[in-house]
Amino acid sequence: MAFLNVKSVEEVYKVINSFKVNPGEQIVDIVDAVGKTLAEDIYSPYDLPQFNRSAVDGYAVRWEDVSGASESLPSLLEVIERLEMGTAPTNELKPGSCVEVPTGGMLPKNADSVVMVEYTENFSDHEVGIHKSVASGENVIIKGEDIKKGEVIMNKGDQVLPESINLLSSLGVTKVSIVKPVRVGIISTGDELVETGEEWCLGEIPNSNGPGLMAACKLWGGIPEYYGIVKDQFNDVKSTLKKAVNECEIVLLTGGTSVGKKDYVAEAIESIGTPGVLIHGIALKPGKPTIIGQIDNTPVFGLSGNPVSAMLCFKLFVRPLLNNYTEEKTLIGYLNQNIPSAGGRQDYVPVKVNQVKDKIEVKPLFAKSNSIGVLTKMDGYIIVPIHSEGLAKGEKVKIYLKERG
Amino acid sequence: MAFLNVKSVEEVYKVINSFKVNPGEQIVDIVDAVGKTLAEDIYSPYDLPQFNRSAVDGYAVRWEDVSGASESLPSLLEVIERLEMGTAPTNELKPGSCVEVPTGGMLPKNADSVVMVEYTENFSDHEVGIHKSVASGENVIIKGEDIKKGEVIMNKGDQVLPESINLLSSLGVTKVSIVKPVRVGIISTGDELVETGEEWCLGEIPNSNGPGLMAACKLWGGIPEYYGIVKDQFNDVKSTLKKAVNECEIVLLTGGTSVGKKDYVAEAIESIGTPGVLIHGIALKPGKPTIIGQIDNTPVFGLSGNPVSAMLCFKLFVRPLLNNYTEEKTLIGYLNQNIPSAGGRQDYVPVKVNQVKDKIEVKPLFAKSNSIGVLTKMDGYIIVPIHSEGLAKGEKVKIYLKERG
Repeated sequence: MAFLNVKSVEEVYKVINSFKVNPGEQIVDIVDAVGKTLAEDIYSPYDLPQFNRSAVDGYAVRWEDVSGASESLPSLLEVIERLEMGTAPTNELKPGSCVEVPTGGMLPKNADSVVMVEYTENFSDHEVGIHKSVASGENVIIKGEDIKKGEVIMNKGDQVLPESINLLSSLGVTKVSIVKPVRVGIISTGDELVETGEEWCLGEIPNSNGPGLMAACKLWGGIPEYYGIVKDQFNDVKSTLKKAVNECEIVLLTGGTSVGKKDYVAEAIESIGTPGVLIHGIALKPGKPTIIGQIDNTPVFGLSGNPVSAMLCFKLFVRPLLNNYTEEKTLIGYLNQNIPSAGGRQDYVPVKVNQVKDKIEVKPLFAKSNSIGVLTKMDGYIIVPIHSEGLAKGEKVKIYLKERG
Repeated sequence: MAFLNVKSVEEVYKVINSFKVNPGEQIVDIVDAVGKTLAEDIYSPYDLPQFNRSAVDGYAVRWEDVSGASESLPSLLEVIERLEMGTAPTNELKPGSCVEVPTGGMLPKNADSVVMVEYTENFSDHEVGIHKSVASGENVIIKGEDIKKGEVIMNKGDQVLPESINLLSSLGVTKVSIVKPVRVGIISTGDELVETGEEWCLGEIPNSNGPGLMAACKLWGGIPEYYGIVKDQFNDVKSTLKKAVNECEIVLLTGGTSVGKKDYVAEAIESIGTPGVLIHGIALKPGKPTIIGQIDNTPVFGLSGNPVSAMLCFKLFVRPLLNNYTEEKTLIGYLNQNIPSAGGRQDYVPVKVNQVKDKIEVKPLFAKSNSIGVLTKMDGYIIVPIHSEGLAKGEKVKIYLKERG
C-alpha cells in the first residue's frame, strides 16, 4: 500500500506563491470595474478641487475687508457679481467688493475667504452688510487640497470600490484597465457521482463539489468552466484534464486524490506535462489527500472528494490565485472549551463566533470530516498548529471568518 | 431663509424600516444563486447521508465478530462481497462475514463498524484477517447524522454562500427561489455637473455621484438605472423623478437637497404623490441636508451633492433596502487620539484601523466634508454619538468597516 509524502501548509504556500496566473488585462467602463482588481497605477490628471471652491453658500471676500465686522457694526461691501453654479466668476475682487457664491462655487481672483450667508444682509442688489469677520481661508477648499495633480490615487492590484468610482469620475477618468477574471476548469471524478438533478440509485450520490466550486469561483471573481463528472478510469481522467488545461488558467479536480487503486488524478497529472505533481498530501485536517501540480504554466489542484475538505482547500490554496483576492478577514477571540488535536498536522476547526461586549467567544463545532451541514452552520475556522496537541479553554485564537459575497 | 427640521438617525431608521421594497422573486439554478438572498425556507428532502456510509477504506463488520482481534491473534472473516463505489451491497452480513467497502461506500445490512484496511490482511479472495477490534459504530457515518429529512437547512432571507450550494446539490436541489435584485433609479441634479468623459469648463465639475452610486448599487446587489444629469429647474427635476418612480423600486437623487433657491428636490417629491417628504434634514455629519420621502410605495432619497455625504447616506439608509444586505461588519477598537465634536448631531468620522497584537488601534482621518480623497483612504467609520462633545484618546469605539465586494 502506498503512502502520502505529506508537506506542511507553509511548504504548500511556497508552491502556491510560485504560481504565475496571468489571465491578461482588459479595459472597462469605470462602473463595470467595481469589485475588480486594477491592472494599472492611476495618477491624478488634475488637482482636486481644480479651483478654489466655497464650502458654503455666502459671499467671497478679502478677509481684511471684513475684519472687525459685527452685528452692530457691519462692513458694507459692493456685490460685483452673483455667481451661478457651473460658471466661473468674470470679475476679480478689488478692495471693498465681494462676489456671491453658492456651495461648491468657484472663488473669484483675490478672494481668500467666504462669509456664510447667515451672517450677511442684502441692502440692495449691489450692496451687502457683513455681520461677522472671517479668518483668511475660512470656508474655502483650496485648489489641490484634496488630491494633487500627479499623485498616485489608486495602485495596481487595488480592488475597485464604489468610492473609487466617485474619485475616478470626479477626475474625468471614464475607463480603467482591470485584471481579467481567471478561467477555472472544474472536473468532478467518482464512480458514485451523478449530476445534481438526475435520479440516483442507492449507493450513488449527487455531485456536490462541482456546483459548490463553480459557485465559489463565481463569487470570488473567477469564471468557472465545468467539465462534468468523469468516471474513475485513467484514460477518461487524463483526456478531460488535458482539455481543461488547454482551455483554462487553473484546473481543479475533485475525488481520486488518495493512493487507492482507483485514484488516478496524480497519475493523470504526471502523464500530461511537466513539472507534474509537486505536492501529494498536506499536513492538514481536513485536506490531507490533496494534490497540487503544474502542467506547463497551469496550476492543477486535486481536491479531496470530501466537500468540507474541498471547499477549505479551495479557500486556502485556490482563492489566492483568483484576481480580486483580498486578505482574509480575521478576528482575535477566546476559546470557550478545550480542543484536542492529534499533532503532526494543522487542524482547521470550524467554529461559531459570538462577541460578548468586546470579548469574542469562540465555540468549536465538532463534526465528522465529511459533514456538509457544518459548512453552513459555522462562522469561520480556527487553526490548531501542526506541533500542538490541542488548545485549552480560554486560549487566544485567530478566527478566519467565512467570507460573504 | 428656510431651515431644516432635523431628525435623529434613530428617527430616520424608523422610517427606513417602515419601507416595503418588494422586487419579487425568481427561480434560478443554484450556482446562479450564489451571493443572492433566498426567498424561501428550504427543507431537506432526505436524510444526509442517505445510507450508513463508511468513513474509511476497509471492511464493514459486525463489531462482535472482531472483538479481541489483534496482530498476533487476528479474527478471520469471510469476504462475501467487494463493493465498488456507486453501488449498493447485494448481501447482508451474517456472523463471521464482512464486506470490503471504499471510503463513502454504503454499508451492508447488519454491519455496524468498519475496520480500516491498514489493520487487515487479505488471506485469499474470500478471506481476510482483522488485526484490530473496533467499537460499535466506529468509522461509520450513520444515515441522517449530518442532516435529518425535513430539517430546515436554509432560511428565507439567508445569503446563499458557496457552501450552501454544496449542501443543496448534495440533496438533489437544482433550483431555488431568490429575491430579485432591486431596480434603483439614479438622478444627478446640478447646473455645475457635466457627464464624466465630456469636456468641462472652469467652474463646472464632472458628475461623480452618478457613477459612484451606480457602482454601489451594482456591487451590493441592486440594478442601477441611470437617468442622467438634470439641471436645477423644477420641471426637469419633477418629470425625471416621475419617470424614475414609475420604473424603479427605489429612486435616488443627488444635489438640490438643501433649502436654497435652486434646491427643487423636496418640492418635486411633494408634487408627484403622497406621502411625499418624510424627512428633510438629519442630525448627521456628513449628511445633514438629506431628504427621505415616499411616492406611493416607492422610497425616494434626496442625497447631498457632496460625495462623502452621498456615499455614507447610501450605505446607512439605502443599502439596507437592497436584497443581499448582510449586517455591517464591525470591530471594537481604541482611539489613538482625541476627536472633538460639536454635539447635537451624530458625527461619522472616517478612520484607519491597525491591529497591534490583539488590540485594534483607531486613527481618525480629519478632512473637510467634501473630500473625495478620504473615501479611498479610510478603512471605515466610527460614530461620535449625538449628545457627545467628542471622544478621548484611548476610548473604546465600534468601527464600521468599509465593506469590500
